[in-house]
Amino acid sequence: MPAALACRLVSNDGPDVRAGIVVTGTELLTGLITDRNGPWLAQRLGELGFEVAHLLCVGDRPVDLAAALRFLADQGVDLVVTSGGLGPTADDLTTEVVAGFAGVELELDEALEQQIAVILARFRYLAHFSPQALRAANRKQAMVPRGAQALDPVGTAPGLVVPVDGGPTVIVLPGPPRELREMWPAALATRAARDVLARTQPFASARLRLFGLPESEIAVTLREVSETLDLTPLEITTCLRRAEIVIDIRHRPGAEAIRDALIEAIRARHARHLFSTDGTSLDDQLAGLLRGRRIGLAESCTGGLLAARLTEQPGSSDYVAGGVVAYSNAAKTKLLGVPAELIEQHGAVSPEVARAMADGARERFSAGTGVGITGVAGPGGGTDAKPVGYVCICVTTSDGAALARDPVLPGDRAEIRDRSVTVAMHLVRRVLT
Amino acid sequence: MPAALACRLVSNDGPDVRAGIVVTGTELLTGLITDRNGPWLAQRLGELGFEVAHLLCVGDRPVDLAAALRFLADQGVDLVVTSGGLGPTADDLTTEVVAGFAGVELELDEALEQQIAVILARFRYLAHFSPQALRAANRKQAMVPRGAQALDPVGTAPGLVVPVDGGPTVIVLPGPPRELREMWPAALATRAARDVLARTQPFASARLRLFGLPESEIAVTLREVSETLDLTPLEITTCLRRAEIVIDIRHRPGAEAIRDALIEAIRARHARHLFSTDGTSLDDQLAGLLRGRRIGLAESCTGGLLAARLTEQPGSSDYVAGGVVAYSNAAKTKLLGVPAELIEQHGAVSPEVARAMADGARERFSAGTGVGITGVAGPGGGTDAKPVGYVCICVTTSDGAALARDPVLPGDRAEIRDRSVTVAMHLVRRVLT
Repeated sequence: MPAALACRLVSNDGPDVRAGIVVTGTELLTGLITDRNGPWLAQRLGELGFEVAHLLCVGDRPVDLAAALRFLADQGVDLVVTSGGLGPTADDLTTEVVAGFAGVELELDEALEQQIAVILARFRYLAHFSPQALRAANRKQAMVPRGAQALDPVGTAPGLVVPVDGGPTVIVLPGPPRELREMWPAALATRAARDVLARTQPFASARLRLFGLPESEIAVTLREVSETLDLTPLEITTCLRRAEIVIDIRHRPGAEAIRDALIEAIRARHARHLFSTDGTSLDDQLAGLLRGRRIGLAESCTGGLLAARLTEQPGSSDYVAGGVVAYSNAAKTKLLGVPAELIEQHGAVSPEVARAMADGARERFSAGTGVGITGVAGPGGGTDAKPVGYVCICVTTSDGAALARDPVLPGDRAEIRDRSVTVAMHLVRRVLT
Repeated sequence: MPAALACRLVSNDGPDVRAGIVVTGTELLTGLITDRNGPWLAQRLGELGFEVAHLLCVGDRPVDLAAALRFLADQGVDLVVTSGGLGPTADDLTTEVVAGFAGVELELDEALEQQIAVILARFRYLAHFSPQALRAANRKQAMVPRGAQALDPVGTAPGLVVPVDGGPTVIVLPGPPRELREMWPAALATRAARDVLARTQPFASARLRLFGLPESEIAVTLREVSETLDLTPLEITTCLRRAEIVIDIRHRPGAEAIRDALIEAIRARHARHLFSTDGTSLDDQLAGLLRGRRIGLAESCTGGLLAARLTEQPGSSDYVAGGVVAYSNAAKTKLLGVPAELIEQHGAVSPEVARAMADGARERFSAGTGVGITGVAGPGGGTDAKPVGYVCICVTTSDGAALARDPVLPGDRAEIRDRSVTVAMHLVRRVLT
C-alpha cells in the first residue's frame, strides 16, 4: 500500500537474541481455526527483548515438526517455543520429536505419571476407554527428555523446557490457549529459560492511536520528521485497525528522548486526531468517562453493535442505561418517540432522525447522554442520494450539547457497521471531554 | 486435551502435492496484528487438493524470507504462496528475494510501469514526495523476475507467478487481504500455476455441526465407529467453536461411501444435537427460518449482542423487528412491560423474568417470536444461588409456544455473553422447526 511509503523504519543496534515459534496442529493448516498462540507468544517474546524471526505453523506430522526445529536452529535462534501436540494420543508427538532434536532419550517421570493419573481420574467419559489404553496414554504424557524440566500440567498435559546442546533452548507448551498462557510464567522461571533471558535486553515501547486521519498523512509526517530527527533507533509500525491508526514504537533502552521527540512531533501536527498516547483504547477511555453517568442508545443500521461493544466492559451495567434497536419506522416512533412526520419529511436515514433517536434514547432511559445511529449498511437499500455506507450519527446530552456526523463509510456491511460504532464512540468521547 | 483422544485420524493415500505459505510483515511478529492471509490461503490450497505442510510468518528482513523459501524448497513442496512485501519502499523486498531464489534477473516491465503510474497519480498525498522518489518507487514495483508472469495490480502492487527451475512455483501476492483475495483467481489462471494444479486431486469434504454435546462424546463415538468401519481414508478434524462442535471430514475421491456411513453413524447417535450436515451455520439457518416472520429481542446481560449477531445478515431488517437492551429493572418495566412485582418476587435474573422479557419484546415490536435473556455475565454480581455464568433464556411465540433454558455457562464475561447468544439462537431454531 502506498500508505507504507515512509512508515516502517527498522533498525538493529547490538547483537539480537532471536527466538522462533512453532505452532503445531493440522487444523491450523486447513483454515478451520485461526492460531491464537503464535501472535500471543510473539508479543510476549518481543516484550522480553527477543527478536522474533520466524513463526511456523506445521501439521501433526513428526517429520514436519522436526524440519521446523532444524530450520530454526539453522537460523541461529537462541530460543524456540512450541505449542500443541502434547496430548495422550499417538499423533501427539511433540515431546518425542523435541527429544530427537535435542539428541536425548525420553525417561519416565514417575511423580508426573502419578500427577497426571489424578487429573485423568476426574474425567468421567474416560470410562469408555480400556484401562490399558488409559495407562498407556497416561504414561506417554509422563515421558520427559533427559535433562529437561517438566512444567506442571494446567489442563492434563505437562509442558517442558528442554536445553539443547549447541542449539536453542526449547520451551514446549500445550495447544489450548488458556493452558499455554497459564503455563508461560512457570516456563520463564526455569533455569534454562532464565539463562537465555539473561542475554536479552527488553524493549521499551509506546503505542499511539489516532482517529479520523488518513494513514497516508502519518506516512508524510514520519517522512518529514525523519529529515530533522534521526529515527533509526526506533522500530515504528503503523497499522489501520477498526478505522483507527495504531502506531507502535519500539526501541532499546537509551532511545527514550528520540521516542518522546517523535511523539511530540506527531502531537504537534495531529493534536485533533491523536486520542491515546498511553496505550489505552477507545473502549477503555469511554468506560472511564462514562463511569458515574448514564448513556442511552438508539440504533438502526448497527443493530445493537454499539450496545454490545459498550457492554463488553465489566461494570458497564452501571452506566449503560439501555438501548433500543429500531429498524422499522414504527419502532422508532413507538419506542423512541421519533415523530412520524420527521421521518416522512427527512427519511429514516437522516441527521434529523439520528438526533431525534439520540434524544429519545436519553429520555426513555433517563440518561444524560444519548446516541442515535441510522444508516445504510448494505448491501441493498442504497440510493444515489443516500448510498450504501451513508450513516447519520448524533450524540446529544441533557445539557443541550450535540455532536453529529454523517459520513459515507467504506467497506462491506460488517465494516460499515463496525466503523459506524467507532465513529459514534469517538463522538461520545468528544462530547464528554 | 483428553477430548482429542480419538478424534483426529490422518491418513495419506497416494503421493501428495504439497504447498507452503510464507506471510511477510514485521507487524505479524510483534503481535500488533493477526495474520488473516495465511489461514485463508491454507483453506483455498486445501480445497484445491494441496497438502499444506508449513505456514511461515517472517519479518521484513530479506535474509529471513530467503531462508523461508529455501526451507520450503528443501521440504519438497510443489508450490509456495507468499503475501506482502510488494510495496514501493526500500524494505519491500519480496520480488527481489524471490528472483534471487529463482536464480533469475529482474527486468523492467514498461507496460506495467505505465499502469502503476496511472494508479499512483490518483493518490493526492503523494504530492508530498519528490518526483524522483516517486519515479523510483514506481519503477521498483514494475520490476519482474525473468520468466515470471506479472498479475495486474488490484491496489497499487502487481502480483507475480514465478516458475523456479528445479524448485517450487512461487505465487507472490500483496499483503492487504482484500487485494490478495481479489488477485487469487488470476494467479491460479496462469500457465505455471495450472501446471502445478494439473497434478493435484481436489479433496471432497463435509462439515457437521452439533450443539449441546460435550466434545468428549464425539471422541467416544469416533472411537466406537472406527471399530467396525475403517475410517483411515478420511481426515477428521473436530473442534469446539462458539459452544458448537464442528467436525470437518476431508477425503480423496472414492471415499464418499465411508464418509456417508460415518455421517449416518453420527446422526444415529446424536440426532438431537446434530443441526447441520450441509455446511450451513446456525446464523444461515436462522436467517432462512426467520424470513417472512418478525422477531423481537429483549437483552440484559448480552447487552445487544444477540441483536447485533442477527443483524449481521444482509436483509435482516425484514425480520428483526427490533430489540431492547434493558439492564435496569426500571427499563425492563418501562420498555418491556415486565411487572415490577415479578422482578421483586423472582429477581431480575430468573426464568420468570426472561419469559416476561420475551413476551414484552414480542408485544412491543408486534413480532411473532420473542427472545428474553437475563443473566450474570460477570466478573462481578454472582451469588451462591445465581453464580457468574447463570443465564436465563426464553423464546416465546404468539402461538403460545415457549422454550426456556437456564444454564450456568463456563468462561469469562465475553465467553458467557457469546454462549448465551448461541444458546438463544438454538432455542429460536428449535421453536421455529
